[in-house]
Amino acid sequence: MNKVAKVYVVGIGPGNAEYRAPAATQAILNSDVVVGYKTYLGLIEDLTADKQVVSSGMKKEVDRCAEVLEIASAGKTVSLVSSGDAGIYGMAGILLEMAGDNIEVEIVPGITAVSAAASSLGAPLMHDFAIVSLSDLLTDWELIKKRIDHASQADFVIGLYNPKSRGRQTQIVEAREIMMRSKAATTPVGIVRNAKRKDESVVVTTLDDMLSHEIDMFTMVIIGNMASFVKNGKMITPRGYDYRAYNEKMNK
Amino acid sequence: MNKVAKVYVVGIGPGNAEYRAPAATQAILNSDVVVGYKTYLGLIEDLTADKQVVSSGMKKEVDRCAEVLEIASAGKTVSLVSSGDAGIYGMAGILLEMAGDNIEVEIVPGITAVSAAASSLGAPLMHDFAIVSLSDLLTDWELIKKRIDHASQADFVIGLYNPKSRGRQTQIVEAREIMMRSKAATTPVGIVRNAKRKDESVVVTTLDDMLSHEIDMFTMVIIGNMASFVKNGKMITPRGYDYRAYNEKMNK
Repeated sequence: MNKVAKVYVVGIGPGNAEYRAPAATQAILNSDVVVGYKTYLGLIEDLTADKQVVSSGMKKEVDRCAEVLEIASAGKTVSLVSSGDAGIYGMAGILLEMAGDNIEVEIVPGITAVSAAASSLGAPLMHDFAIVSLSDLLTDWELIKKRIDHASQADFVIGLYNPKSRGRQTQIVEAREIMMRSKAATTPVGIVRNAKRKDESVVVTTLDDMLSHEIDMFTMVIIGNMASFVKNGKMITPRGYDYRAYNEKMNK
Repeated sequence: MNKVAKVYVVGIGPGNAEYRAPAATQAILNSDVVVGYKTYLGLIEDLTADKQVVSSGMKKEVDRCAEVLEIASAGKTVSLVSSGDAGIYGMAGILLEMAGDNIEVEIVPGITAVSAAASSLGAPLMHDFAIVSLSDLLTDWELIKKRIDHASQADFVIGLYNPKSRGRQTQIVEAREIMMRSKAATTPVGIVRNAKRKDESVVVTTLDDMLSHEIDMFTMVIIGNMASFVKNGKMITPRGYDYRAYNEKMNK
């Protein structure tokens, strides 16, 4: 079947233009219509002045995709915009699930939130890591707990998306309890709010103390592994390089 | 202590300029000297024509950092370049470990290989995932196996970095055996070589069949979870949105 139109599912990264890939910028510029959650659309206003912009609320993902597919089926090129990477807890999956084979879909990757947060913390993701969303809106909470438990037992660095929101306050408390079974209380924890956006805040703390800091839906939480440490305020998970000879030379 | 100079640790993404963040481009342009593995330097030749470029071989990470710190200590601004995200199995950690407090270090995040590969496969990372490097050069193979086992038991999507090289052929075979204990043989597997570079190749196969395809050090392997499926050649891990009403409307 001939493809009648094209949909780009675009990850714009953290939000600031300096972390948005040129491919994302170009996809938006190539589009007749740009669709997204209103906060994200505000971050790309410089690109959409002459375009039809369709803003939608949170938790309306299926309706948003239906609208995108309807517009594309009428022959227009559409960008569906997510923050971070559209393929990581973004809109890529549901759009591909719902799209018929008359629509050409291109996923444009972006810098995901855990990468942005890690860069502000130092280098916490230098070794194997597990990414878990604490949102139980669509996922059984028992499965989420099981994943946190196994990731902790295997000493993964853990990155938590959607750690807390106004309506979900207890999940981060339970998650911490599960991690405490396998990880030391002194394990470094990085908490980054609005990573690589204006008003970014960065806290380096411990698993023991993490709940005494502000955590909300704009926050990424990264919990270290057994070897993670803090140096000059930076959280680092070593990969295992041996630089003792260098240190000895520098200190002699 | 006053910082005498600045080091940028820069992730350039997959390599093509269209996926390199403007912040990465700017960091390189701001630098007097650019240091990196020679393959990556070749990907940014457009930016380094008027700069001192220091090329180094693989597996010389400590020497490369020592050189960067020596140049920076002499007052020059240096970019240390990695492909993908410098904070994910890149150079950010070892540079921060070795740097003295006279050096200002800025980590510039990039699109990491698993994001690039996922976007070419479809949307395999829409749910919780674990990232494991199969390189046992610096990590005990027993720990790597334990992580793969726990990630499989908890039904994580799994992304494998460094799945195979000329000198490491058996790890991917063992990893698959471990995953087969907990994951169905029919689990979708995506294999992407040179993701978002020229000569990209994309294969969607199954856990049962994955070893019959070419896998090397330029390859990312993504293994789905229980719910992952293939539609129109795309690998999709659903997040759990309910779009049955939409399907019924479209098919009536």
